[in-house]
Amino acid sequence: MSTDELTDLAQQLRVDSVRATDAAGSGHATSSMSAAELGAVLLANHLRYDFDRPEHPGNDHLILSKGHASPLLYALYRAAGAVSDEELLTFRSRGSRLEGHPTPRLPWVDVATGSLGQGLPVGVGMALCGKRLDRDPYRVWVISGDSEMAEGSVWEAVEHAGAEKLDNLTLVVDVNRLGQRGPTRHGHDLGAYARRLQAFGWHTVEVDGHDVDAVDRAYAEARSTAGRPTAILANTVKGKGVADVADKEGMHGKPLSDATAAIAELGGVRARHVDVHKPAEAAPAPHAATGGHLTLPRFRATADGGDQVATRDAYGKALAALGAARGDVVALDGEVGDSTRTEYFAEDHADRYFECYIAEQLLVAAGVGMQARGHVPYVSTFAAFLTRAHDFLRMAAISRADLNVVGSHAGVAIGQDGPSQMGLEDLAMMRAIHGSTVLCPCDANQTAKLVAAMADLHGIRYLRTGRGKADVIYGPDEEFPIGGSKVLRRGDADRLTLVAAGTTVPEALRAADLLADEGIEVRVIDLYSVKPVDAPTLWAAAEETGALVTVEDHRAEGGIGDAVAEAFADGRPVPRLVRLAVSNMPGSASPDEQLQGAGIDADSVAAAARLLVEKAVVR
Amino acid sequence: MSTDELTDLAQQLRVDSVRATDAAGSGHATSSMSAAELGAVLLANHLRYDFDRPEHPGNDHLILSKGHASPLLYALYRAAGAVSDEELLTFRSRGSRLEGHPTPRLPWVDVATGSLGQGLPVGVGMALCGKRLDRDPYRVWVISGDSEMAEGSVWEAVEHAGAEKLDNLTLVVDVNRLGQRGPTRHGHDLGAYARRLQAFGWHTVEVDGHDVDAVDRAYAEARSTAGRPTAILANTVKGKGVADVADKEGMHGKPLSDATAAIAELGGVRARHVDVHKPAEAAPAPHAATGGHLTLPRFRATADGGDQVATRDAYGKALAALGAARGDVVALDGEVGDSTRTEYFAEDHADRYFECYIAEQLLVAAGVGMQARGHVPYVSTFAAFLTRAHDFLRMAAISRADLNVVGSHAGVAIGQDGPSQMGLEDLAMMRAIHGSTVLCPCDANQTAKLVAAMADLHGIRYLRTGRGKADVIYGPDEEFPIGGSKVLRRGDADRLTLVAAGTTVPEALRAADLLADEGIEVRVIDLYSVKPVDAPTLWAAAEETGALVTVEDHRAEGGIGDAVAEAFADGRPVPRLVRLAVSNMPGSASPDEQLQGAGIDADSVAAAARLLVEKAVVR
Repeated sequence: MSTDELTDLAQQLRVDSVRATDAAGSGHATSSMSAAELGAVLLANHLRYDFDRPEHPGNDHLILSKGHASPLLYALYRAAGAVSDEELLTFRSRGSRLEGHPTPRLPWVDVATGSLGQGLPVGVGMALCGKRLDRDPYRVWVISGDSEMAEGSVWEAVEHAGAEKLDNLTLVVDVNRLGQRGPTRHGHDLGAYARRLQAFGWHTVEVDGHDVDAVDRAYAEARSTAGRPTAILANTVKGKGVADVADKEGMHGKPLSDATAAIAELGGVRARHVDVHKPAEAAPAPHAATGGHLTLPRFRATADGGDQVATRDAYGKALAALGAARGDVVALDGEVGDSTRTEYFAEDHADRYFECYIAEQLLVAAGVGMQARGHVPYVSTFAAFLTRAHDFLRMAAISRADLNVVGSHAGVAIGQDGPSQMGLEDLAMMRAIHGSTVLCPCDANQTAKLVAAMADLHGIRYLRTGRGKADVIYGPDEEFPIGGSKVLRRGDADRLTLVAAGTTVPEALRAADLLADEGIEVRVIDLYSVKPVDAPTLWAAAEETGALVTVEDHRAEGGIGDAVAEAFADGRPVPRLVRLAVSNMPGSASPDEQLQGAGIDADSVAAAARLLVEKAVVR
Repeated sequence: MSTDELTDLAQQLRVDSVRATDAAGSGHATSSMSAAELGAVLLANHLRYDFDRPEHPGNDHLILSKGHASPLLYALYRAAGAVSDEELLTFRSRGSRLEGHPTPRLPWVDVATGSLGQGLPVGVGMALCGKRLDRDPYRVWVISGDSEMAEGSVWEAVEHAGAEKLDNLTLVVDVNRLGQRGPTRHGHDLGAYARRLQAFGWHTVEVDGHDVDAVDRAYAEARSTAGRPTAILANTVKGKGVADVADKEGMHGKPLSDATAAIAELGGVRARHVDVHKPAEAAPAPHAATGGHLTLPRFRATADGGDQVATRDAYGKALAALGAARGDVVALDGEVGDSTRTEYFAEDHADRYFECYIAEQLLVAAGVGMQARGHVPYVSTFAAFLTRAHDFLRMAAISRADLNVVGSHAGVAIGQDGPSQMGLEDLAMMRAIHGSTVLCPCDANQTAKLVAAMADLHGIRYLRTGRGKADVIYGPDEEFPIGGSKVLRRGDADRLTLVAAGTTVPEALRAADLLADEGIEVRVIDLYSVKPVDAPTLWAAAEETGALVTVEDHRAEGGIGDAVAEAFADGRPVPRLVRLAVSNMPGSASPDEQLQGAGIDADSVAAAARLLVEKAVVR
């Protein structure tokens, strides 16, 4: 497209941003206007994208990291003919696909944005796919704001992209000088950004973001720069084109007060169409071709003479087996693969293993990027350190991502390392993620089966593993459906039901034995599927035994006790409930001492059950 | 101390690290050994610290960010005479203060470490105090590993320290080349770190970390460098001093296999004492002198003709008033002060307001650092974006920090901006933090009272505020004790109880009116204190009305429904329970449409109550 056409297209994008936000009565007009030329030139001259085939494996990926500038994105879609003028004006209204911040309700949006600093880390995941997994020469374009460069997650991604020499990745920073509440730290000092990015091995191009020819050259330079990623640092004016708002504070996130005048100032409504370059025909994604018979590791039950096995070991071995059977499975780890046991996968499938170093936000974001490319990622670190990526997990759900997340070293049972390393809040965090699945296996065979099953679920699937060796309770042919549970002890005279998962299952079983010796029969349920929870089995236990005691190596809030209570939160009669969980602040101690200290060992469980049977606990 | 003495001290620290980990049978010997000279020279020649008076306001602050190297820290304490040889050997045993990773159970430890990448951000908070709040010329020393430089939180802190010219802050990076599972990304390339840090405005010194004279000069250079922070990049050998483990992979986190031989190789056990330089006498912290009468904002009840007021507005005004009354109150925000309304505080108390830009990990960490210096921080951003700092909040609890955290824009009620901006998981996250207080006010007067009350609580105190204007329900003289609740509707014939908090309180009240019109009397409880929860009032409601319906603008997991269920988790009889919460994935829509779409508006609440009364809901 020519200079004049590009300039005109940019004005159209501004006008459409003004129109959309005016129709909505809210939204970020000025943040869209600063990046109009950046968007126009990219769409017209550089993007390779088939809007009729968003699933085309050769398509470029465009991530609008500054998701609040969604009007610009939707204006680009209109120019490309993907969104009608009528739909554009549904912006932010109930039921519209054109949400305040972009989400994959729109087929051309790979991932949701709106929490700043996430676009680049996700883009790194996609670009890694392009370099190491996929055959297609697509590019990843991330349009970012300047404010969000303060997010540490951006620098995790900058470091990773530089080190991996991701020359298929371009970061476009719309340096419009103004954040939400006022000037950014670096204002229009493009050099401040350039120095930082260069130190991490990036190529940088500084450009007047409103000069379409300069922007065009910058994109061309990015596309032709080999061996390192490029950042285009564009000096822009927030609200550019409308004197009333241009470069003014206090205009963030607001429609223009006089849209009609602004549109006139911008030269009026246009209907310029961009014939977006389509990508070359591409082979189907390589992983689609791969597939084989899954041979999961099999563990002999300890009662039959088998060794004890840590669930994290079973996870690593099962993941390696899954990788052998499925070419679409990839693994990512935060430099703790020797602890999480993803090292087994890394040994067998080095080409599909991604070391993310100690950068948990990047770790999860890269997984999100890879699933958007059709791969099936397993991302692993300590359960405790997944909290570092909480916002990315939350956004992954909004992105409708299909992502496997595995947290090791659950609970006080890890022992001497102390509370900083203990996953004690992970179930609460993962259960509250929209549409998540939360699995908490107690033995090796159960773990292996769940590792395989989770691969085909939708949404965020979480598996919690333990550090220490544990009895193998189940045989290798036992099945563990998602949403199920196992009744491990059951009698006609059960006085109550112990509900456990993971580490606390052996404790519950031992407690049942202790109680049986005293003539108190209790039921024991292994609630390996914490979400969805097996409500019918809990209902039956409630009806038949009258009381449920939950035992978990996790805080009392939001975990297994909550999952059980929620199964009765539809108005049905509720049994008596007792919650045993970690209410102390642990220090260092042996695993057994920790369980005892937290009151979740067999003796404590038995004591609570005894009290409940005697009803002494109820005031 | 002389070169020979320093060298000998360093060997003593190695020996003691070997002895402690050997006694414990676990722990990170080799990570301690690499930093022995760095620790020895700091303790002997540069640290200013009175071990008899850890509360001395003039003390330097030493943060061991690589917390797994705790044996080194404890060996330093032994050398300083603060810890006996006998106590040293209690390392990692039950009840010992010498935990696997340092915590403030030891009076000389300001903050817990062990989740990597947190020491520098917390140190920035302390150094900011030194520059802007305190009168004392203390220094902040952060000893970091090289692996943790991959964490984005480190770069949030690097950026902030550079921009704020924190020359009272020194980062010491123990570049021992080996992470937990193998080589780090940059190995021994000190220049890679130096280039990055310099780009952010830091002074850097590259040094042989085992040459005590060179290390001594580096510390002196750091102390004499004005106008910018200094990073000392030390080339070291993991496991230095014992040939069997030096620079070897696979030795992370393990005691040495032959401690006796290693101690002999290191020259045997020593008992060298360091007379640590004491700080100059200091004036008491300036905030202690300030204090005045607290005049909270007062809002006229809407029923009496007052305007509607957003709880975030009440927060901002109350915080500004609190700042006028108390000199120890400081506020930090993540560049959204115009949304959270900390802008009111910033206008009145610019000297005690800290703009942290969009860097939520730094935001929370800086608050943690400031409370360690005796200030009373309020850190604020959108509730949704607090998830970015989840790991820092978790660690803050382990640090026994007293910290006020305020999350705005709670729930679907924010309207058009869509799910990325909605705090829907914050209650689950904050309730699961050990020892936390969770407050969820519904009106302006309640908010103001709670803002003042939270200042004097212990632990992490969370306040959740809403975006939209809301009725002022209470008068300005009403009291709201922590752990209390308000029964807003009560009758002799209540058929059930509606339990709400925040945005859903007005919906519950309207639902009660709708039901009353149909002859169904219901009780309504405003559960503003979500943790601790007012169990006795819930118990009474259960006994008197038989059923509780919780209504929350939050996910069903871990929030108000869980808090209510937990009040009955001690084995007492449980009422029928119904949980209304946000189970959909919202898009854009008006606030009223959002509440309706999520099924938590007055009509939905009334419908659920009707069903329960008719018992039609129970299968």
